[in-house]
Amino acid sequence: MRQVTAFKWVPPFAQGSVRDIRVRWALEEAGLGYDDRLIDLDERDSAAHRARQPFGQVPAYRDGEVEMFESGAIVLWIAQDSEALMPDNAAGRALVLTWLFAAMNTIEPVVAELAGIDIFHADEPWAPLRRPAVEAQLRKRLGELQAALGPRRWFTGDRFSAADILMVHVLRDLRHTDILADYPALADYVARAEARPAFRRALADQLKPFKAAEAADPALTAA
Amino acid sequence: MRQVTAFKWVPPFAQGSVRDIRVRWALEEAGLGYDDRLIDLDERDSAAHRARQPFGQVPAYRDGEVEMFESGAIVLWIAQDSEALMPDNAAGRALVLTWLFAAMNTIEPVVAELAGIDIFHADEPWAPLRRPAVEAQLRKRLGELQAALGPRRWFTGDRFSAADILMVHVLRDLRHTDILADYPALADYVARAEARPAFRRALADQLKPFKAAEAADPALTAA
Repeated sequence: MRQVTAFKWVPPFAQGSVRDIRVRWALEEAGLGYDDRLIDLDERDSAAHRARQPFGQVPAYRDGEVEMFESGAIVLWIAQDSEALMPDNAAGRALVLTWLFAAMNTIEPVVAELAGIDIFHADEPWAPLRRPAVEAQLRKRLGELQAALGPRRWFTGDRFSAADILMVHVLRDLRHTDILADYPALADYVARAEARPAFRRALADQLKPFKAAEAADPALTAA
Repeated sequence: MRQVTAFKWVPPFAQGSVRDIRVRWALEEAGLGYDDRLIDLDERDSAAHRARQPFGQVPAYRDGEVEMFESGAIVLWIAQDSEALMPDNAAGRALVLTWLFAAMNTIEPVVAELAGIDIFHADEPWAPLRRPAVEAQLRKRLGELQAALGPRRWFTGDRFSAADILMVHVLRDLRHTDILADYPALADYVARAEARPAFRRALADQLKPFKAAEAADPALTAA
C-alpha cells in the first residue's frame, strides 16, 4: 500500500498548508488509496525520519520499491501514471510540467517570502522595511499569472492537471491576506479548485489527526 | 530543430548563471543538438516573448509541437528520454525526481534569498539585519545536503543525472561567497560537475554571445 508520511499535529497557522496535502490531493484525484504514517513534530530530527527525508520535512512517500520526498516530485510521480492528472500526448504533458514548475519555482518563492515575513518575522525590525518590495514583486507575478491563465479554467486548458494542485496550494498560502481579491480570475480559480471533492477529502484527511490530537491534549490549543 | 531562447547579453553578475545554461547543459549531456534564439534584454516584455514566457524570463524551449518554459521543467522533459540523464528503472527515476525538486524547491529558495541580498539589496537598510538569519538557514540546509550526499559521487548514486544539473547550478550561485568551502564534499561535488565536458560546452555557448556583444559595444562593460 502507498504510504504518505505526515505530522500528527502542527500549530494552527500551518493546518491545511502542510505539504502532505498536495500528495493526498493528487492521490484522491487519481483514485488511489494510501495509508498515512503520522509522526510527532519532534520526530523530525530522528535518524529514522532523516533517512526518509534528509531535511526533516514532510511528506515522504513510499510505494513498494519507490521511496521519495519533495511534494512536487511525489505529485508529478503520481501524475505520470494518471490520466486524471496528466494528458497522454506530448504537448499536453510538456505543458503540465511547465506550469507545475512555474508554481514551484516562479510563484512559490515570492509567496513564501511574503508569508514568511507575515507569519514568522512580523515583529523583526527589518520586516516592515522589506515587505513592500516583496509585495510589489508578488503583485507583478500575480498580474502576469492572471494574464497567462486568461479565460481558461485550469492552467493547462479545460482539464484539471497536477500543475493546478501545486499552483492552487501555493496561492492558498496568501489566504492570511486580501491580496488575491485584486486578481479575481485567480481568486475564482482557487475557489473552483477548493470546491473539488478530492481537495475537500484531502483537506479533511490532513486535519483529522490534528483535531484528534487537540481533543486529547487541550494544552495544544491553549496558547 | 530544438530551439532554446536565451539573452544576447546580460550584466557580468549574471553571466554563467542565466538559466538557459541548465537546458544547454542537459542537451549537451544527452547529445542533442539545438539552435539558440537570442533576444535583447528589452525584448523581455514584448508581446512575442510574453506569448512564449509569461513572466518575461529565459529560457523558453521549442521542439516541434512541444513548447515549454521553466528551466526545471525543460531539463526534466529532456531527461525523460535520455539514459544519460535518467535511469530506466522506477526506483531510480523516482530518486531523480526527488533530488531535482530538492534542488529547485528546498535548496534554491534559500540560496536565492542570500544571493538576492548580496547582489541586489546589499545597500538597503534591512539587508544587514536580515542576512545573518538567511545565512544560518542556508548553512543548516547545506549541512543536511552534505550529509545526504554522503560518499556518493552524484545525488542519485554513481551515475550523473538531471538532478545534478539543477543542484550544481543552484549551488554555483553561492560562488560570490566562501560559504561552500565549509562543506568540502559539496564543493568537490560542484567542481566534479563543472569539469564535465558537457558543462564546459554549455557555459562557453552561453558566454559566447555576451563576449561578442561586449566586443561590438564597449559601452556595455564601461560601467
